[in-house]
Amino acid sequence: MAITSFIPPQRTLMGPGPSDVNPRILEAMSRPTIGHLDPQFIVMMEELKELLQYGFQTNNTLTMPVSAPGSAGMETCFVNLIEPGDTVIVCQNGVFGGRMKENVERCGGKAVMVEDAWGDAIDANKLEAALKANPDTRIVAMVHAETSTGASSDVETLVKLAHTHDCLTIVDAVTSLGGSPLKVDEWGIDAIYSGSQKCLSCTPGLSPVSFSERAIERIKARTHRVQSWFLDLNLVMSYWGTGAKRAYHHTAPINALYALHESLVILQEEGLENSWSRHLHHHNALRDGLEAMGLEFVVGKADRLPQLNAVTIPEGVDDAAVRSKLLADYKLEIGAGLGVMAGKVWRIGLMGYASSRRNVLFCLNALEDVLSSMNAPIQRGVALAAAHKVLNHAPQECK
Amino acid sequence: MAITSFIPPQRTLMGPGPSDVNPRILEAMSRPTIGHLDPQFIVMMEELKELLQYGFQTNNTLTMPVSAPGSAGMETCFVNLIEPGDTVIVCQNGVFGGRMKENVERCGGKAVMVEDAWGDAIDANKLEAALKANPDTRIVAMVHAETSTGASSDVETLVKLAHTHDCLTIVDAVTSLGGSPLKVDEWGIDAIYSGSQKCLSCTPGLSPVSFSERAIERIKARTHRVQSWFLDLNLVMSYWGTGAKRAYHHTAPINALYALHESLVILQEEGLENSWSRHLHHHNALRDGLEAMGLEFVVGKADRLPQLNAVTIPEGVDDAAVRSKLLADYKLEIGAGLGVMAGKVWRIGLMGYASSRRNVLFCLNALEDVLSSMNAPIQRGVALAAAHKVLNHAPQECK
Repeated sequence: MAITSFIPPQRTLMGPGPSDVNPRILEAMSRPTIGHLDPQFIVMMEELKELLQYGFQTNNTLTMPVSAPGSAGMETCFVNLIEPGDTVIVCQNGVFGGRMKENVERCGGKAVMVEDAWGDAIDANKLEAALKANPDTRIVAMVHAETSTGASSDVETLVKLAHTHDCLTIVDAVTSLGGSPLKVDEWGIDAIYSGSQKCLSCTPGLSPVSFSERAIERIKARTHRVQSWFLDLNLVMSYWGTGAKRAYHHTAPINALYALHESLVILQEEGLENSWSRHLHHHNALRDGLEAMGLEFVVGKADRLPQLNAVTIPEGVDDAAVRSKLLADYKLEIGAGLGVMAGKVWRIGLMGYASSRRNVLFCLNALEDVLSSMNAPIQRGVALAAAHKVLNHAPQECK
Repeated sequence: MAITSFIPPQRTLMGPGPSDVNPRILEAMSRPTIGHLDPQFIVMMEELKELLQYGFQTNNTLTMPVSAPGSAGMETCFVNLIEPGDTVIVCQNGVFGGRMKENVERCGGKAVMVEDAWGDAIDANKLEAALKANPDTRIVAMVHAETSTGASSDVETLVKLAHTHDCLTIVDAVTSLGGSPLKVDEWGIDAIYSGSQKCLSCTPGLSPVSFSERAIERIKARTHRVQSWFLDLNLVMSYWGTGAKRAYHHTAPINALYALHESLVILQEEGLENSWSRHLHHHNALRDGLEAMGLEFVVGKADRLPQLNAVTIPEGVDDAAVRSKLLADYKLEIGAGLGVMAGKVWRIGLMGYASSRRNVLFCLNALEDVLSSMNAPIQRGVALAAAHKVLNHAPQECK
């Protein structure tokens, strides 16, 4: 039988990403394709770099989107900065630290793991001890916003510590960019990668990255070729570079880049600090609603990400059944647990366009209904009021 | 000053890709984003695999799109199949054979080059000699449709030869898929990659790949880990695999996959053989028009690709000026020469949706006008008639 056009349902995306995409971005994506060396496309690329610099709060010249998802952005940082034999400290407090370890090893590096419990922030004291114990360490890698648990780590402090020990830093900001304070230059981050489908509310498939001058020097001083041709920044830069003449490296994903451009125009219109405040505001409302219902957060109050809310599944409640019913009855997607947290937590995203009053109330209402229908041990009839109490106040400033 | 939405111009894309995108595909791309583990998305993924199997003419289970452009599809084939120390014969007759060499070396393999002149097809006799001279060769890599020159090579013969010498084969079909005869199973190809933005007329950014059982066995028997985490097929398959349960590997580029799905639905509606015939038909018309004008093809008649027409720039004509004028006056993009052919040839694509009567006539007319305005030494007033002569006949069958 012939296969016909795929018409997706209209979901509300409140998982760990992709998040709800602003319709403006979907519209931008469907604009006419032009060539990757078209003079007008080059203008768009330059704007895109400038917009990303704003989002990352950096003046780094080497700031651009990798033509593939966040995992490829991660790999771009590792394959360009690590040489065989390098010692790399990886701070792990969730799934993505584990992926970093994989990357280090596949680059021929030696990974020294600094482990914190899932749900905790990265402990600076442990990092300091590891740096002292491994004086040959060249790089420290860390996750700013752990998407698997919803924990935020104090990147500013961790980066300073790494620099004290003469190490470069690689930071995973997949879930933080646009959603919570992130200041690449002020914090001194050397290499950073993010994703398009989280707090930028763009479609998935691109990974913004940025590299400091110090990182570029390290790349230029390499004695081994970068193991990936596709991700070799020496080559990629011939296309994304600042020169007037762009050389073909690979064919850029034109329409996806239109979408990212539009998402960043929207971020710029709102203002970065306003976006951070909005995320925090709606998190506070969702949090008060969830807690009123009796659900408990995985992460302690001080380290919670506003954009990713992980809560423990109440005893006796069927994880998959709840998520299926939310999808069926409400067309609402929330996230399952990852790794050791599979079956134990739900991850509720409030990212980008999805971080709205509408979604907070919609989600609380849907969750209460579905959990009630399954006789889950929750407090009923109090969540919405708790959320409203927050929503009726103005958002706090967030800098 | 604030950056505003990017509104691209409407071009006619007759370069080496991206090609004109069917509006149906642009519309599909702007449909609502859903989650990469949504049950309905899984249905779409299964259809996509089936449609790609049709396009590649294969029953290979491991047939799917890599979440990045063609260069990443190339790298997927090389990093998964090559282990350090492996000898790989690379047949080079243009730019992309050179990129294959880069890939082999970055995987720790030893590349043995079999070189043919740019514009020629790959010579089977040279490959045979190289296979005899290098009995430890494990893989032979070749480009089916050289996008830098427009030469088509006899992959069926070359693959048979490689198999006789107990080698696996990697085939670059970036420009051939959907545009000219390609039969993965019948020809016995072991690993193949393509691109979304050529004869499928989809937006750029995805790379369909397919692997034979023999290739999968080789991957399973590896003694070294695949150097790329992002492209490691053992991991990617946990998401794209046939099992009912899909494990998260990376976040798939949802909307780009909608677009690829739609492009393949369109291919299926037309019929693969009809698409091949259409490409040949319009090539014949363009060829007769260009030759009537006095322009000469780079590739000999027997080895020409219908979808990529490389012609020599007439003596004394300013390459860049002509392309700029075509872009300015006609919003028409044709391709420049690559590598050693830079400044010496134009590459005129007739790919997918762009392979149409309208485009053949539009391009001949525009080229004649612009070249005439620059007093180039061409025959005037004869090209369109020559093209019409072909267009007035029915397309030949193409199998």
